[in-house]
Amino acid sequence: MPTTPPPPDVQDFLRKPNPCVVASVDLHGELHTAATWYAWQDDRTVLLNMDESRRRLEHLRRDPRVALTMLDADSWYHHVSIVGSAIALRPDLDLEDIDRLSRLYTGQPYRNRKRARWTAVVGVTRWHSWDSR
Amino acid sequence: MPTTPPPPDVQDFLRKPNPCVVASVDLHGELHTAATWYAWQDDRTVLLNMDESRRRLEHLRRDPRVALTMLDADSWYHHVSIVGSAIALRPDLDLEDIDRLSRLYTGQPYRNRKRARWTAVVGVTRWHSWDSR
Repeated sequence: MPTTPPPPDVQDFLRKPNPCVVASVDLHGELHTAATWYAWQDDRTVLLNMDESRRRLEHLRRDPRVALTMLDADSWYHHVSIVGSAIALRPDLDLEDIDRLSRLYTGQPYRNRKRARWTAVVGVTRWHSWDSR
Repeated sequence: MPTTPPPPDVQDFLRKPNPCVVASVDLHGELHTAATWYAWQDDRTVLLNMDESRRRLEHLRRDPRVALTMLDADSWYHHVSIVGSAIALRPDLDLEDIDRLSRLYTGQPYRNRKRARWTAVVGVTRWHSWDSR
């Protein structure tokens, strides 16, 4: 489990709408990566959200392991990587979480109001910051 | 194993010096992601290269599973994800491979000539292209 939260400068970076890639393990044991929106919250967890049809949701139900790399949009030679696990999976009933993510990345609420969404909260076990700009 | 190579437009994208995140499994079974240079080669494999001290090298020796997501530098809402495995790990004795990667990404040979490097060749099992620009 996490020892201490990342220092303020790392958290300041993580709060930005950075390009992010999430890794999980699929039902056949293969690794799976995808670009994703995320939000850093509560000084220690990562909010993810996905369409209920997403295979990643099924993956996380069976195997909660997650890793994430957030790239600086201005220079991807600056990045932060996180190792963790999905500590909560819950329906995003009022689309509050996807709206939060959409506002963070686009400034607007999420457009598609018809499809059910799920939220994953990722607890951070370890993190690593890299800056070779 | 791969059925057919990705179509030309996907391969054209993969040949660019795109920001890329690679996922592997560490010695404790945790997922590990990191930003990386890569090169698409032979219409079907991905060249990676790492410092001999990199833990990812040790990971791949024990568990060859790899996943990669390549993001379009102009819009990360366009990306390609690959599922595969390390089909070869070899010392990059003359630094030919890291020079190739460095030239692709920076236009210059690799600066650090003192440290030993290793090359991983990733065979592609599956790929997926996403474009929501």
